[in-house]
Amino acid sequence: MQLLKDRICKDGKVKAGNVLKVDSFLNHQIDINLYQEIGKEFKSRFSDCDITKILTIEASGIGIACITAQYFNVPVVFAKKSRTLNISNDVYSSRVHSFTHNNENDIIVSKEFLLPEDKILIIDDFLANGCSVEGLAHIVSLAGASLVGVGIVIEKGFQDGGDNLRKKGMRIESLARIKSMSEDKGFTFYP
Amino acid sequence: MQLLKDRICKDGKVKAGNVLKVDSFLNHQIDINLYQEIGKEFKSRFSDCDITKILTIEASGIGIACITAQYFNVPVVFAKKSRTLNISNDVYSSRVHSFTHNNENDIIVSKEFLLPEDKILIIDDFLANGCSVEGLAHIVSLAGASLVGVGIVIEKGFQDGGDNLRKKGMRIESLARIKSMSEDKGFTFYP
Repeated sequence: MQLLKDRICKDGKVKAGNVLKVDSFLNHQIDINLYQEIGKEFKSRFSDCDITKILTIEASGIGIACITAQYFNVPVVFAKKSRTLNISNDVYSSRVHSFTHNNENDIIVSKEFLLPEDKILIIDDFLANGCSVEGLAHIVSLAGASLVGVGIVIEKGFQDGGDNLRKKGMRIESLARIKSMSEDKGFTFYP
Repeated sequence: MQLLKDRICKDGKVKAGNVLKVDSFLNHQIDINLYQEIGKEFKSRFSDCDITKILTIEASGIGIACITAQYFNVPVVFAKKSRTLNISNDVYSSRVHSFTHNNENDIIVSKEFLLPEDKILIIDDFLANGCSVEGLAHIVSLAGASLVGVGIVIEKGFQDGGDNLRKKGMRIESLARIKSMSEDKGFTFYP
């Protein structure tokens, strides 16, 4: 998606430890017009698919999933990262390591919101090591639902998460798949 | 907003400790068509206002803020609840007590995303004791920006948060303001 790649080149900032900051337009401040174009692109890429629900994970996946869901006209379900007083015990859960926060989270989804007949599209902002997508896919399998595909805004293609998931047979559509990035040389992308 | 009140009556569940569960349509599973109607209603209620940004707080505020932002055609900024490796030190912060999680969070917004010339609409899913809105309003004031108003989906009108904020001169628009709720008697609303 050229619009997105151009924006990453223009406003993305590379920090030590392969951290990519895109918080001026994607995951702290949000450019709603860009989100709409992202949503339309996901709809275009999965236009051949019958999808009944979009599944994402809090927090920064929620906005992209909601905007995208409009083009599929389906509900969003977002996995929560820790057990709160408001969540019943009747949940599917999976343990996920967060490299951003350097901790482990149980991600949970109430059983009533994922049904065996559901055809799920997972949407998330980033794919790097693949832990979040693996956790979400695990929850889909626990529910006996079908995983149709995975839509990712930015894949760090130089990490192995995406390839590992593809080897497992998942259909991953990444709108920008970064081949290399550095503070001085900028970005290159996979086609 | 009658559509929302009807939905609360139909699908909202009252639990011990004045907990209202609306996670089948508002903040775990999301009814995107309802979100769109909520967004249009906020636009209608604040149609007289010049707004440059919508400010919300992760996690469940993000989806409503993004859908709403489309009708105002402005960016969203969401406050984060804890310092991550990806956030610079150059942030505005405010300490907020969460009754849901029974803990204290520093909510933070990068200084670069709130400017003195910004006219801010705060959007959130719930207003009960008012702590989140107070924290967000505090951050708006730290930035020297103007707080135009506060749009709330569900106000627990039997708690004093909303009244306290109104007494401070804030313009609060709640789409459903609950007067009373109980497991057996259901809901009543303020007009």
